[in-house]
Amino acid sequence: MASTPTAPGPSARGPSVTLIPEGDNRERQVCPDCGFINYENPKIVVGSVVLWQDRFLLCRRAINPRLGFWTLPAGYLELNEGTAEGAQREAWEEAQARITIDGLLAIYSIPGISQVQLIYRAHLTGPEFAAGPESQEVALFGWDEIPWGELAFPSVKWALDHFREAGATQDFAARSNPIDGL
Amino acid sequence: MASTPTAPGPSARGPSVTLIPEGDNRERQVCPDCGFINYENPKIVVGSVVLWQDRFLLCRRAINPRLGFWTLPAGYLELNEGTAEGAQREAWEEAQARITIDGLLAIYSIPGISQVQLIYRAHLTGPEFAAGPESQEVALFGWDEIPWGELAFPSVKWALDHFREAGATQDFAARSNPIDGL
Repeated sequence: MASTPTAPGPSARGPSVTLIPEGDNRERQVCPDCGFINYENPKIVVGSVVLWQDRFLLCRRAINPRLGFWTLPAGYLELNEGTAEGAQREAWEEAQARITIDGLLAIYSIPGISQVQLIYRAHLTGPEFAAGPESQEVALFGWDEIPWGELAFPSVKWALDHFREAGATQDFAARSNPIDGL
Repeated sequence: MASTPTAPGPSARGPSVTLIPEGDNRERQVCPDCGFINYENPKIVVGSVVLWQDRFLLCRRAINPRLGFWTLPAGYLELNEGTAEGAQREAWEEAQARITIDGLLAIYSIPGISQVQLIYRAHLTGPEFAAGPESQEVALFGWDEIPWGELAFPSVKWALDHFREAGATQDFAARSNPIDGL
């Protein structure tokens, strides 16, 4: 259960020392005060390309990075959460939207920022949506109305392109980064 | 650069207090001494079903859990590592095998242990392999010779079944957990 920790002392340093722990073969961040080893691993982002009557749901970011730019509803997978369930949660949190997952669209491996993105194909269960706390605005765009010049991240464009490539195909092989992607 | 931390004092506690940090909406483990917040996220396992002349490469585990049981070459993705690259590294570490990745076979979402597994189709680049430090033994098995009763994890069977289902199909939609999987 939650409780309040005592305020950190002036000499507290956290996992701030880089070394290879015994029995390991990679450098990790270790706390010089308590010996805690901070095993960091790549993070999983789950998200979806969400359709409603041939239009695409996009969110204008209310947070950094890329504040003011348009993105898919997506975010970090949480502990003990399934990947499709996480994509549904993010659609709810960022766009107050209920979605049905239709299948996996793409996996983007972005080692430079230690991220793996799992992007689903999905559709709204109804026409209701609204900006969540991390969005300035949420809107539906026809393909030709998409604000291509104001997309937040390269993978947003990749996912939209891959969605279009998938079309009505059911047995669609999940796509990965474009060759010239990164 | 690596350096040795001082030995932890007797009162050092590490991230041992459960609370919801300010601005967050989930409980995290926080260190009461230095305030370090240990943001834990699900981990990514990368691995592959590796074929050589219609036979499957399996490794008998030399470590817990499931010591002595057979598994695919697979393990945790590391920071700044691509997913296919990670699968190749694991094949080298566990089976001293060089592999070519042929495509994504499956994504298994296992929220109970906060794990997402990305399993590739692959083949050996040559007939050389050997037990790495985490394997007691590495061997090739025809489909009917696979030690089905001695597989280490449910997802090893899922992946072998999905590999067979994929056959020679190139545009194969990545499979996920069987309905009765977990």
